[in-house]
Amino acid sequence: MAAKSILHMLSTLKHMSPFDVNMAIDAGFDVAIPYTNVTLDEVTALVQDAMFSRAPSAALRTGIFFAGRDAVLALDMLDAAEKALLKPFEISLFADPYGSFTTAGAMVAFVEKVLREKKGRELKGAKIVVYGATGVVGYSSAVIAALEGAEVTIVGYSGLDRVTVQAEEIEKRFGVKVTPADGSKSEQVRALLVEHEIALCAARAGVQVLSAEDLAAAKSLLIAADVNAVPPLGVEGVKLHDKGVELPSGALGIGALAIGDIKYGTEAGLFKQMTTSDKPLRLDFRHAFALARSLL
Amino acid sequence: MAAKSILHMLSTLKHMSPFDVNMAIDAGFDVAIPYTNVTLDEVTALVQDAMFSRAPSAALRTGIFFAGRDAVLALDMLDAAEKALLKPFEISLFADPYGSFTTAGAMVAFVEKVLREKKGRELKGAKIVVYGATGVVGYSSAVIAALEGAEVTIVGYSGLDRVTVQAEEIEKRFGVKVTPADGSKSEQVRALLVEHEIALCAARAGVQVLSAEDLAAAKSLLIAADVNAVPPLGVEGVKLHDKGVELPSGALGIGALAIGDIKYGTEAGLFKQMTTSDKPLRLDFRHAFALARSLL
Amino acid sequence: MAAKSILHMLSTLKHMSPFDVNMAIDAGFDVAIPYTNVTLDEVTALVQDAMFSRAPSAALRTGIFFAGRDAVLALDMLDAAEKALLKPFEISLFADPYGSFTTAGAMVAFVEKVLREKKGRELKGAKIVVYGATGVVGYSSAVIAALEGAEVTIVGYSGLDRVTVQAEEIEKRFGVKVTPADGSKSEQVRALLVEHEIALCAARAGVQVLSAEDLAAAKSLLIAADVNAVPPLGVEGVKLHDKGVELPSGALGIGALAIGDIKYGTEAGLFKQMTTSDKPLRLDFRHAFALARSLL
Repeated sequence: MAAKSILHMLSTLKHMSPFDVNMAIDAGFDVAIPYTNVTLDEVTALVQDAMFSRAPSAALRTGIFFAGRDAVLALDMLDAAEKALLKPFEISLFADPYGSFTTAGAMVAFVEKVLREKKGRELKGAKIVVYGATGVVGYSSAVIAALEGAEVTIVGYSGLDRVTVQAEEIEKRFGVKVTPADGSKSEQVRALLVEHEIALCAARAGVQVLSAEDLAAAKSLLIAADVNAVPPLGVEGVKLHDKGVELPSGALGIGALAIGDIKYGTEAGLFKQMTTSDKPLRLDFRHAFALARSLL
Repeated sequence: MAAKSILHMLSTLKHMSPFDVNMAIDAGFDVAIPYTNVTLDEVTALVQDAMFSRAPSAALRTGIFFAGRDAVLALDMLDAAEKALLKPFEISLFADPYGSFTTAGAMVAFVEKVLREKKGRELKGAKIVVYGATGVVGYSSAVIAALEGAEVTIVGYSGLDRVTVQAEEIEKRFGVKVTPADGSKSEQVRALLVEHEIALCAARAGVQVLSAEDLAAAKSLLIAADVNAVPPLGVEGVKLHDKGVELPSGALGIGALAIGDIKYGTEAGLFKQMTTSDKPLRLDFRHAFALARSLL
Repeated sequence: MAAKSILHMLSTLKHMSPFDVNMAIDAGFDVAIPYTNVTLDEVTALVQDAMFSRAPSAALRTGIFFAGRDAVLALDMLDAAEKALLKPFEISLFADPYGSFTTAGAMVAFVEKVLREKKGRELKGAKIVVYGATGVVGYSSAVIAALEGAEVTIVGYSGLDRVTVQAEEIEKRFGVKVTPADGSKSEQVRALLVEHEIALCAARAGVQVLSAEDLAAAKSLLIAADVNAVPPLGVEGVKLHDKGVELPSGALGIGALAIGDIKYGTEAGLFKQMTTSDKPLRLDFRHAFALARSLL
């Protein structure tokens, strides 16, 4: 009998996410075990513990998933886990805190597709502004876009401090520069929009980031994408299922559920890779982006 | 391959109940995931999280179970969960805190059967006194009986205060009146028994509620049912497996394990409904009562 | 359809051990449910809860596993669980805190095999010193050896106090005497080695217990066994996979991974017994020792 696929699901929060449990089981894991309130310093022991109890062939059918609500912490845990692995007992690792890595991958991939097909442009060199950049989706979207060669501005609603620290963290970890910007006032939000070609809206649920007036003022805006599915939506005029629909301002809108569909497929697909791969995987938002591209 | 049946088991307590885990797995759930120390305000997010990650057809094979030790809190959680559901992503919900809803359903259904078959009477209009009414089983039994049209008195061992609040809560939530009564002294316990036709004993394990003398004094008592399986049992003279056995006083006794057998079948059956239903279910003690009736 | 095998995994620690989860699933359990931060006084309720929800035939396919990091507490929990069981609803119990019971069983069984085959001796009457005796592996190894009739000395690195209490606890629980000894200074460690024939090293990972000089001084030493797989290893000159390899001093070395292989087989085998036995089991380090013997 083949070894069962076992997923150890580590969350930094009080509860494991039922969303991720369902996804993992539907993707082929036979068993999912939750570990909650996990701290970074506990990761090494948990990973080694998970690794050494199965023969190398079965170790491949063992996965560790990192949940929570903090992109940087999830990446740190992924790094700690990777360091803890010892050949040939390697197991697969996947981080997707709050579903943000797969959501970000899906959003940027969708933007790339619309940009390429309808505007004949690439992400490389595109001027991208990320609203809600201090959140988990915003963080990951900014890094993915920057790694593709876009000129990325990350906007902080609470002023410059947090996004400045974040830009430094991103440069240190990924070797790419992003520009922090103050978006605490609505005129700053609009001024930033006017200077960019693509707006990625990753604000909190139920918060409108860009109004029709903002969009009308942004003459060079090509695309506005939004991941907020709770009314009011993040970009006025962009509907949930829009896949590059032209707005009155001429920019093309991509809606939250259009992105959400790709996000589901991406998360499901990455879990599926864990249960079928013949070598150990280490999956973060970059792999989510790569898979989302192939799904579009 | 058919979607696996996944049960997210939420408890307000520190530990999930192994009893309920076993029941759920034996009823056909493939996967059971515990969530502990869950609070009411966490329910909406957990339910939506569980709901949105599967296609509507698979969502049907997704269940949420509410455990704990508080009937009112479990009902509040069930309400919060139901409000959180969005068509067509509906999932099934089942509350059975401390096994009390299925125990209460089984007890009242058993009483009804004996009452009908041996006394030619119905629950409607029957005078029922519930001892241990502030507990989870007592609460649910009182509501079930009142909804069937019985005249129900709920007895508090710690005086009138808690049962008075409880009667108000029951009227507000279910639109039925029950009468609170002070049972803090043994003569009150007996006086209440004398005035009623049916006694439902849902006191703590190992506590005798009614003595042979109490029973002898209760000339109009038709049935005494008990859910306490730990000696001393709740009603003197009623044995664990009694299914309407006549006591010296003439009343008919129903014992804890006779009720327990129906309770097992009821809880198992409700879990089974969750794994097989073609529409989403919302199950509480009323559904337990309906199923228990059909099992008797 | 046969009843599924369900394992309720109780840990006294914050997290269940992924190692044990993997082992249990690979041994045939269909479902594993973690319960964490479990205290001794919660065991009775959890065990009875697990026991009463399945028919006796299915109860046999229900197991409770005791994890954590404390041998005495695990034994107390096992005792509490055994007392809570009621015929015919018996379920199987297995304690292996920190993997220590199976590790200890494997180490002592390996020592016995080498002692018998290469030295023509038995454990009975052998003079055994246990280093790291206050740890979980050391505790269990000392008891197993003493129950086999060895003359066992348990060495405390922090002085005599803890090992003295431990010797009293062992005599009270198992009816065997072991001798406590102070090993807080390196000359004491060596002096104790010189007086014994077998050294069981169960110190912390990465701590060398015995140097080549210690071994050279120990003229009557027959065997030195070590369970520390993290360099520096516990016994200088004994390699990870050594299975009775002669050291310069003439003693035979048994290494941590040689013992580890038997430990894996032992833990897997005990879980397998739980999923296949036709009577309820209660498994501790004595059963681990018995199984490890049969695997060598």
